[in-house]
Amino acid sequence: MSADQRFKQQEAVLGYSFGGPIKVGGNYAPVVRDGAFVYVSGQIPRVGDEVVVVGAAGAEVPIERARLAAKISTMRALALVGRAVDGLDKIVAVPRMTVFVRSAPSFTQQSEVADSASDLLSTVLGPVALHTRTSVGVLQLPKGATVEIDFIFKVDERP
Amino acid sequence: MSADQRFKQQEAVLGYSFGGPIKVGGNYAPVVRDGAFVYVSGQIPRVGDEVVVVGAAGAEVPIERARLAAKISTMRALALVGRAVDGLDKIVAVPRMTVFVRSAPSFTQQSEVADSASDLLSTVLGPVALHTRTSVGVLQLPKGATVEIDFIFKVDERP
Amino acid sequence: MSADQRFKQQEAVLGYSFGGPIKVGGNYAPVVRDGAFVYVSGQIPRVGDEVVVVGAAGAEVPIERARLAAKISTMRALALVGRAVDGLDKIVAVPRMTVFVRSAPSFTQQSEVADSASDLLSTVLGPVALHTRTSVGVLQLPKGATVEIDFIFKVDERP
Repeated sequence: MSADQRFKQQEAVLGYSFGGPIKVGGNYAPVVRDGAFVYVSGQIPRVGDEVVVVGAAGAEVPIERARLAAKISTMRALALVGRAVDGLDKIVAVPRMTVFVRSAPSFTQQSEVADSASDLLSTVLGPVALHTRTSVGVLQLPKGATVEIDFIFKVDERP
Repeated sequence: MSADQRFKQQEAVLGYSFGGPIKVGGNYAPVVRDGAFVYVSGQIPRVGDEVVVVGAAGAEVPIERARLAAKISTMRALALVGRAVDGLDKIVAVPRMTVFVRSAPSFTQQSEVADSASDLLSTVLGPVALHTRTSVGVLQLPKGATVEIDFIFKVDERP
Repeated sequence: MSADQRFKQQEAVLGYSFGGPIKVGGNYAPVVRDGAFVYVSGQIPRVGDEVVVVGAAGAEVPIERARLAAKISTMRALALVGRAVDGLDKIVAVPRMTVFVRSAPSFTQQSEVADSASDLLSTVLGPVALHTRTSVGVLQLPKGATVEIDFIFKVDERP
């Protein structure tokens, strides 16, 4: 099964589709490709026009819902990269993932939230998904989102 | 008009000059060039010796002033890169910008603050300014600054 | 004296050994090497199974202890890179260091905390340690750690 097929499976599991236009606010790009590297802007758990998980993890947002937010953010990133390079099977490495978790003051399970993004990446991409990761707990995120994740992917440059 | 001339125009618009020495505290470099890539350390809205915008966006700092802080931070970064590579017209791409906004607990307009940095980059550099971006809301920043921004630029390596 | 010997000296100075297994939680890699670049995941001040400095800088953690936390995080990163590339003397540059300091609301000395990491890097690696740096103050970090630091190193690719 291809990475693109596994991506579609995860859409079904999550119950969200990432096939439509992916909205970006502001004068920047969702993705910039530079040779073999694809930089992805910080992704919040937005589906269509709606940010589907908002609030602070450990306060109004229980950890399982924060983990869902991390998965949706990761799916958005994968959808963006897949379009930019003509399919997720082009990805050969994921050097960096940075996970910002909007956190209640005493919430310290940012790694556990980020694990759901790491696991999804591994499920869709297989062994090439192995990545370095930084997870931090922040006070706020754009639109009150619970999670924001950015990535650097590496892709096969051959046509 | 060259990017360096547009930079000077923006100095006039903002009413600040970035021609003097650009102070860096500590045992690190404001800029590290590696081949075609120029990494820029996190820039706060400091002009000369003074951090000109301090405080939390959405609390003591209204959004328009936070947006000014983002512009000053970006001008500092551009001044540093211009000196490192002998002119802003050498810049060919901006793969990454990360914007940290010191935020009041309920302030969620980090993207709108970052937009002013993105817009300034576009005004000075033109189409090569298109970048990926991550904006987050943090509890504090060095010296109480309202904004801190770091960058990766790509430059033309030909002499 | 080699960088690896200076690393051992710093282990003695700090009173901690980084020679054992370096624990990573979750489905990600502590280090990903891509050609000449070595990305290191966010490091907290963990020695063995224990996070030795937890709490907010400027509140329950005085600045000197936050500075110790930054040193331990940096030693972990160096230990990881040393193993990945067969010795710290392979390092030729440090393009990027990002320092997240868990901070009390009024604590603004994130740069002073990060300085201890920069100084240690310089002590162990010498002139190639010169790096760009971003320091921010965040609300929380995984396991309540006081500091988290990630890095991009560049290494000599020759065998």
